[in-house]
Amino acid sequence: MKTRKITLSEQEIPEHWYNIVADMPNKPLPPLHPGTKEPIGPEALAPLFPQELIQQEVSTEKWISIPEEVRNIYSIWRPTPLFRAYELEKALDTPAKIYYKYEGVSPAGSHKPNTAVPQAYYNMKEGVKRITTETGAGQWGSALSFACNIFGLECEVYMVKLSYEHKPYRKVMMNTWGAKVIPSPSEFTEAGRKILAEDPNSPGSLGIAISEAVEMAAQREDTKYALGSVLNHVLLHQTIIGLEAYKQLEKAGDLPDVVIAPFGGGSNFAGLSFPFLRLNFDEGKKIRCIASEPTSCPKLTRGVFRYDFGDTVGMTPLLPMYTLGHNFVPAPIHAGGLRYHGAGAIVSQLLKDGLIEAQAHDNVEVFEAGIKFAKAEGIIPAPEATHGIATVIREAERCKREGKSETILFNLCGHGNFDMKAYQDYFEGKIVRHELTDEDIQKSLAALDTPVIG
Amino acid sequence: MKTRKITLSEQEIPEHWYNIVADMPNKPLPPLHPGTKEPIGPEALAPLFPQELIQQEVSTEKWISIPEEVRNIYSIWRPTPLFRAYELEKALDTPAKIYYKYEGVSPAGSHKPNTAVPQAYYNMKEGVKRITTETGAGQWGSALSFACNIFGLECEVYMVKLSYEHKPYRKVMMNTWGAKVIPSPSEFTEAGRKILAEDPNSPGSLGIAISEAVEMAAQREDTKYALGSVLNHVLLHQTIIGLEAYKQLEKAGDLPDVVIAPFGGGSNFAGLSFPFLRLNFDEGKKIRCIASEPTSCPKLTRGVFRYDFGDTVGMTPLLPMYTLGHNFVPAPIHAGGLRYHGAGAIVSQLLKDGLIEAQAHDNVEVFEAGIKFAKAEGIIPAPEATHGIATVIREAERCKREGKSETILFNLCGHGNFDMKAYQDYFEGKIVRHELTDEDIQKSLAALDTPVIG
Repeated sequence: MKTRKITLSEQEIPEHWYNIVADMPNKPLPPLHPGTKEPIGPEALAPLFPQELIQQEVSTEKWISIPEEVRNIYSIWRPTPLFRAYELEKALDTPAKIYYKYEGVSPAGSHKPNTAVPQAYYNMKEGVKRITTETGAGQWGSALSFACNIFGLECEVYMVKLSYEHKPYRKVMMNTWGAKVIPSPSEFTEAGRKILAEDPNSPGSLGIAISEAVEMAAQREDTKYALGSVLNHVLLHQTIIGLEAYKQLEKAGDLPDVVIAPFGGGSNFAGLSFPFLRLNFDEGKKIRCIASEPTSCPKLTRGVFRYDFGDTVGMTPLLPMYTLGHNFVPAPIHAGGLRYHGAGAIVSQLLKDGLIEAQAHDNVEVFEAGIKFAKAEGIIPAPEATHGIATVIREAERCKREGKSETILFNLCGHGNFDMKAYQDYFEGKIVRHELTDEDIQKSLAALDTPVIG
Repeated sequence: MKTRKITLSEQEIPEHWYNIVADMPNKPLPPLHPGTKEPIGPEALAPLFPQELIQQEVSTEKWISIPEEVRNIYSIWRPTPLFRAYELEKALDTPAKIYYKYEGVSPAGSHKPNTAVPQAYYNMKEGVKRITTETGAGQWGSALSFACNIFGLECEVYMVKLSYEHKPYRKVMMNTWGAKVIPSPSEFTEAGRKILAEDPNSPGSLGIAISEAVEMAAQREDTKYALGSVLNHVLLHQTIIGLEAYKQLEKAGDLPDVVIAPFGGGSNFAGLSFPFLRLNFDEGKKIRCIASEPTSCPKLTRGVFRYDFGDTVGMTPLLPMYTLGHNFVPAPIHAGGLRYHGAGAIVSQLLKDGLIEAQAHDNVEVFEAGIKFAKAEGIIPAPEATHGIATVIREAERCKREGKSETILFNLCGHGNFDMKAYQDYFEGKIVRHELTDEDIQKSLAALDTPVIG
């Protein structure tokens, strides 16, 4: 019998996260103050994050120790399995070897708890009583609810009102773990009240929800804020994925030629790929790392590299990023986790320096890829994950054309159990291609008055 | 770091299923013809099932070899992990050691693929082109859809119309794996047309759906029928669960004092417990095996042992079973898999002979148990699984009162990702206790004219 799953014991859960900043030839540029546009230091983050996370945010240490209590909670679902996708290889009739790291085995069903757990842990250690956050489709909110429950913290999730009404089951999941879920905009915050005064029926947006969560954290002594992607410390925590995958491939006697992951704000992609980029830096390997994004939100393939805000409203520090402009409104695709206008600072610098690649896929192509995967391998992937699968299929077809038996590794970042409405829409012919013209993109970028880089 | 998950390699997937019939002191009584009420032989099943499954249905061999092709597909999700529930133990402050076998890691999210895969395999081997089945909430239908897709068989699922309308996501899941899902009653069968003529708005029932699926299989040469519980061969396939759990507990240097599983038709309970009952038979162990049922459908704790039909309409052979009467209509609890009037022949005989136990739990108690579990261990359990958890909590509390450090093992048969509506109802106060009076039960039993036993 062929071995499909390469597993590790709990004792083999890595003891350190990998901080790629230590190895980057060009370090990410500093964040700027949203008002003065001057570089800001770590102390500016103190009202929102605990000290330990701020230190990680600016650290240049290569390896950062994972606390034993975090490894202990990781062991609820980690190490996650690495699968050899024999059935997908057969379905594609490709000479490529395809592996996938499956992060959907976590209680929340995605890779998000990898950072939610340490974030909740460090907050608890520093005496914080409550964490606020925002969530769109609900993946990040449920991961943080799970993590806060474990460490006895209260969790307040500002959920985009439209999602709150259309995706009640993610909300129920958060409630089950004891979190309070508030439809945003709400009457609880100044930001929310302001929006509601203008439009009492506002459906909300991720930008508004961020403003509410940040406001509620900043005004209470015992409360901090947590973010699920983009920031350096979030990407750092996710490297547990690639570090495990590397150990697993070593056991299989293999090493990837191509590493692929979906791209929203960067943590999914960073999580799998950074530990392999390390081999490029340290050992001169030439592993290609490809970020997969939707053609409807193509910041890496069609955006510009400049300073931009993390939120829509313009309250956050300015970050150096590949961006479509913070006012860009992506089409309402089901892969909610990929509907973000910008990319984190580290990943943006890596792309700028030609150290990583990006590919974009249309909405119809990704569902075809997702269903092909589900039929071959059994697992129904989350809409975000189908973007990575689409890139895998492209690369596997290239291998076939070129007659090359390359090794492809990708991140199956979550299952689609809470996304069956998306598949239903596909079967009912409601999934359409979203063509973005250069004009659309230029229009959004022309409105930017944020600092240009270099 | 304490080890939470006891894992096995794919090479350790058992090579045989365990057939408890070989060890039973009193074998199950034979099925009777629904018309003549005379015992029937295996040949009566030939229009519906392939030969290999019929042989398994009547086999008295103790060990039945698992085909290599089936073990290969099992390896997509098996061996499943065995968890030591440290956090639940802590939450209950019990001296008991609690383990759970987690079957929710299968692509369909429950233990059902354990039998769906071999059933599809044997059908494929014997040249069958299409399998029909019925499904209520959709767990069995999705498992069979997954399995048929793997072996290139068509799959036709008759889904109770009310569920078809209220639970569209299970239907989408089946579609994703290529199955055809038909709301029942339908115009495609005589049974369906008859019901629709009487009531064009019939919401359907599992009994009607069985009649439709059986009719469609019986009338087509290339089509067979598949059942997801009750029958001997189904219970047999599920013993893979307990056989793995036994190996895993051996690795942990442990052996259960109490084995617990939810009870619908019997396959869930049989799957985990039979391999431990074997130790009682073979080695004189005294492991208690407890079936957990809802108080709203208490066939084991309050039913009678007599012949009864497997379906509502009275078309199937008569089976010796603990039953509430085939016309009994259980309250509409969310644990759809436990809403069945009778118990399989083997389990019924074991209960009659005092070799197993049963406990019933109220609807409110099981949700409290499920949420306690989710908060402690992270995984949100399926409503069926919460019944087992409620029994675990009772036994763990008994251990605490008695100051005993017993070892408790239970079957976490599936996750609740498709059942968040149930949790939502709980949080909204819509989950109510269902009190069955003796009169309710007597009324249903009084209507029975099926043969009495002994």
